[in-house]
Amino acid sequence: MNALLTDLYQLTMAAGYFAAGKQQDTATFEFTVRRLPRGRNFVVIAGIHRVVEYLLGLRFTPEEITYLQGLPNFRNVAPGFWEYLAGFRFTGDVFCVPEGTVLFEGQPVLNIRAPLIEGQLPETFLLSAVTFETLIATKAALVAHAAQGRDVVEFGTRRAHTPEAGVLGARAAYIGGCAGTSNVLAGFRYGIPVMGTSAHSWVLAFDSERQAFTQLQQLLGDRTVQLIDTYDPLEAAKLVAELGGPLWGVRLDSGDFVQQSKQVRKILDDAGLTSAKIMASGDLEEHKIEELLAAGAPIDAFGVGTELATSADAPNMGAIYKLVEIESQGVTRYTAKHSPQKSTLPGAKQLFRYSDFDLLGLHDECAGGSEAMLKPLIIGGTLVREMPDVASIRRRAQENLDPWPSEPKRMGRSHALEELEKKY
Amino acid sequence: MNALLTDLYQLTMAAGYFAAGKQQDTATFEFTVRRLPRGRNFVVIAGIHRVVEYLLGLRFTPEEITYLQGLPNFRNVAPGFWEYLAGFRFTGDVFCVPEGTVLFEGQPVLNIRAPLIEGQLPETFLLSAVTFETLIATKAALVAHAAQGRDVVEFGTRRAHTPEAGVLGARAAYIGGCAGTSNVLAGFRYGIPVMGTSAHSWVLAFDSERQAFTQLQQLLGDRTVQLIDTYDPLEAAKLVAELGGPLWGVRLDSGDFVQQSKQVRKILDDAGLTSAKIMASGDLEEHKIEELLAAGAPIDAFGVGTELATSADAPNMGAIYKLVEIESQGVTRYTAKHSPQKSTLPGAKQLFRYSDFDLLGLHDECAGGSEAMLKPLIIGGTLVREMPDVASIRRRAQENLDPWPSEPKRMGRSHALEELEKKY
Repeated sequence: MNALLTDLYQLTMAAGYFAAGKQQDTATFEFTVRRLPRGRNFVVIAGIHRVVEYLLGLRFTPEEITYLQGLPNFRNVAPGFWEYLAGFRFTGDVFCVPEGTVLFEGQPVLNIRAPLIEGQLPETFLLSAVTFETLIATKAALVAHAAQGRDVVEFGTRRAHTPEAGVLGARAAYIGGCAGTSNVLAGFRYGIPVMGTSAHSWVLAFDSERQAFTQLQQLLGDRTVQLIDTYDPLEAAKLVAELGGPLWGVRLDSGDFVQQSKQVRKILDDAGLTSAKIMASGDLEEHKIEELLAAGAPIDAFGVGTELATSADAPNMGAIYKLVEIESQGVTRYTAKHSPQKSTLPGAKQLFRYSDFDLLGLHDECAGGSEAMLKPLIIGGTLVREMPDVASIRRRAQENLDPWPSEPKRMGRSHALEELEKKY
Repeated sequence: MNALLTDLYQLTMAAGYFAAGKQQDTATFEFTVRRLPRGRNFVVIAGIHRVVEYLLGLRFTPEEITYLQGLPNFRNVAPGFWEYLAGFRFTGDVFCVPEGTVLFEGQPVLNIRAPLIEGQLPETFLLSAVTFETLIATKAALVAHAAQGRDVVEFGTRRAHTPEAGVLGARAAYIGGCAGTSNVLAGFRYGIPVMGTSAHSWVLAFDSERQAFTQLQQLLGDRTVQLIDTYDPLEAAKLVAELGGPLWGVRLDSGDFVQQSKQVRKILDDAGLTSAKIMASGDLEEHKIEELLAAGAPIDAFGVGTELATSADAPNMGAIYKLVEIESQGVTRYTAKHSPQKSTLPGAKQLFRYSDFDLLGLHDECAGGSEAMLKPLIIGGTLVREMPDVASIRRRAQENLDPWPSEPKRMGRSHALEELEKKY
């Protein structure tokens, strides 16, 4: 369980809310895309599967409670607090956009209505889990869009911020539009297509490039992708041409891709290997892919690693999780933060989506002809929606990205939300 | 187990090496800092604990093997390959720099000498695990250095690339020089000091700021840190002054820190709270901290989140894991890659460290008066070094950073290495 995978202040506040007798207050917290990742005008929401796993599994073990009891922040807790933690379960309601939904700046991802402590504790985990997969799905969408229908394979686990993040990143990259991943565990766990054949070490491990290429062909047949830049790419391409089929194609991993791909294409074509493909990998991202294709590089598929697995140009985004309503002893207060540059809107919200327009309103409003995007996910601590498989989530994302959102969608605020904002 | 947490091509090559009868070849792979993270001239190596956990725990479960058997890459594997995987254990030798060591560009982190497949498979996991923690430890060193002896607390789990990466990032940040972390699981698991008191939601959840501040003080006594920017920071500071002790201090999380901290300091001092501290947090990193201190902001401690937890200005580095030697049927070949911009040096290497000079030599050389930095970690698949606790690793890092490496250390190559390079 992951009950301690949170910031200390969440647990400090839990002890404080308990001491103040506020553990029965009903709070609504809202997870919002306050600022988009740098250089994006939309995000593809991913990582919702982890919201469900986390909230439904949230428990404190005896060892965890013993650890907390030893921390100075918990010297003065009120009687009953440790028993409360020992029996802790998430019993609240979660309304959430489906994974694969495209959202724009200022839009809500989910809201949680629950007893105050149950709503407070998940902040840290949920922000990280959803933000990370959303960053990667969004980056993948940009890269796949740049590839104009050519396959993009996610190759980035070795650069991910931990190998485990690589697995989740591979899932998100697939949702965003990649054709597959090199990450085997992502294939095993999520049913994502896995791809990959050989590295430079393969070529180096044999006495000759010829021997390395022949052995790979024997193993893989028409799935063979020869990596041709260990020594001289053109010499290697000639060797591939000489060996002939079966063959999927070749991979370039360094050098001038435009010039090399054209030369290699000619070598393959001259040998009659017109259906052999050329894949390129190595420090690629959407802008480089655009340039390569604009320069007429005959590249059929791209392997994208570092830049995708870390969303390197925008490795974080301004997602927030804020208290927007609290009901204490029958009285509801709407809450907002007025700090400079960091203000928030009061009240639990709903996002109403029309084809050409979004409306941000209050959660209990109704906007005819729109789709209410925050849908019930967990009610009273129980999952109420069947979790879609990753292929379905990917389809949803691809539908959301067609037509391509080259500009932010217009969004207005409902009258009721504006009135509430004036009051709080 | 994490046997599938790798790139597919590692397993494809494993099948190919096995088919080619090369599984008994002895290979040496080397993990090298090829390019430093952008804007750094050194790195603080972290994440070695995961190398040990991973290599000693590497096993294939029956379910994992069944999954692999269904993949098209493994249709033509040689007889005995699946039995080989089922019995797979890492039996090789690992020489590695101790965690907390400061390294410079072009220096080796570790080398693995093992049967070819055992050396090949770990590439993906090791690159990700060590690179990530190294990035964070290095960023933490920069941030802590900028704070000039003031405490820096790692606050970034919510921005980490998965919550689990936040735990490992907190560990690395502590090694790099942070005084503690807000991540409770990092405290539980690694014994790192954990810190944190309350969020804006705490203030919002009560009917008044006064009530919120009073409740927190009752709970935390002289550890109380009042967050004063939910509404008006100066009004909140006056309230803190009026309430008096017990108190650790206040936290500012937005706005003009220079101006605010000076005004708040005066309010606290005028009330006799001269020992109350001011903490600042919110989008901080080493450059902003330097500016704040240069402008005379009376800030006593910093909370650093996003920029630290993602090493946002340099979210990746050019670490490589390459085959450098292979011994096949009694014959040793030294291997190097000659691709443009991506060439590698042949031969298993050792880093010899003198006080003012580093020497990159071959693994079996001896350089009198130097310290050989790659030390035996695992021999014959068995751990041979006691793993230090995180506090010891942190001390090592801090010793390595004193004096501060404001310039890259000079490094030469041994005669033997230069001769080998000419030959391969």
